[in-house]
Amino acid sequence: MLLPELTIQLPEWVSEYIEQSSNTFVTIEDRMDFVIELSRKNIEQQTGGPFGAAVFDVDGRLIAPGVNMVIPSNCSILHAEMVAIALAQKVLGRFDISDGGKYNFDLFTTTEPCAMCFGAIPWSGVRRLICGAGKKDAESIGFDEGPKIENWTQALSDRGIDVICDVQREKAVSVLNDYIKYDGWIYNPNSKT
Amino acid sequence: MLLPELTIQLPEWVSEYIEQSSNTFVTIEDRMDFVIELSRKNIEQQTGGPFGAAVFDVDGRLIAPGVNMVIPSNCSILHAEMVAIALAQKVLGRFDISDGGKYNFDLFTTTEPCAMCFGAIPWSGVRRLICGAGKKDAESIGFDEGPKIENWTQALSDRGIDVICDVQREKAVSVLNDYIKYDGWIYNPNSKT
Repeated sequence: MLLPELTIQLPEWVSEYIEQSSNTFVTIEDRMDFVIELSRKNIEQQTGGPFGAAVFDVDGRLIAPGVNMVIPSNCSILHAEMVAIALAQKVLGRFDISDGGKYNFDLFTTTEPCAMCFGAIPWSGVRRLICGAGKKDAESIGFDEGPKIENWTQALSDRGIDVICDVQREKAVSVLNDYIKYDGWIYNPNSKT
Repeated sequence: MLLPELTIQLPEWVSEYIEQSSNTFVTIEDRMDFVIELSRKNIEQQTGGPFGAAVFDVDGRLIAPGVNMVIPSNCSILHAEMVAIALAQKVLGRFDISDGGKYNFDLFTTTEPCAMCFGAIPWSGVRRLICGAGKKDAESIGFDEGPKIENWTQALSDRGIDVICDVQREKAVSVLNDYIKYDGWIYNPNSKT
């Protein structure tokens, strides 16, 4: 039997965007601006949903970016956070990017993680999560965040992962709203619009 | 910038195993036996953790198998269920394998899903989840199931996904126990053994 396989491959425009970006992302707002622009370009280029993410080291060096690729890849697991986590692990050559707690890496995401991405975070080795828009912002345009525990920030904190919310939230929300203006597909199962 | 990419590629032995297996998996026990044997071979061949999964159609035809590949792929998102979901979507050419509710597919997993895989299930389009071993069985050998809501089977049921637990549980548990005998690595972050 010829086994199926799937390659997680970022859209080509990501390479050019990174080359044109600053080499240093000094503040967490700078880093969030970078991932918000990823989400904006992702809808402008029509390469996926209105979500971006990235793993940075503590000095603000980009380790790996991620964008939502559910529709073009025909793959429901390819949310921006999952892509950024998988590719950061590929770059660093380890499935626990903290390497047993020795290194600190941050996951930035333009919108609070859904139930799947939330569940993926403790396995990734990231030590901090920084979010732009929140669950209500995603839900307000029709996206479903899934069955996530109520006290999700506390649950991550209990596992040594700090969470910072609402960083550049208005900018992140503006991309979600623009996705609707562009007639973007809200791709929850059974809710094609 | 040369963008990182990652290919989700099953171990080579999976092809031979499928060719040697029955073409028809009549009962849910037959289908669970198939995925339990996937998990057993995965530890014997040392190609990952003691977990297997597969997507089947309602007539028992195999759509795509999955095995845990966290360690060999250096990728924490490659749990067996995630691999089976992603590859089934690749085979069928759609991110919602139910295609808006028109088709019924089952996800079989040798052990109750962790928080990440649980969160991934509503996005996949599978209409039924069948589990072998349970959370306590995984935890008894040291695996961490993550912060999952208490009433997870009800949460899936509320989304139209039926859950059947404890199918061939003893056989599934025997693979978990054998993993420990083989001195398998319990690879939760910060808990190398």
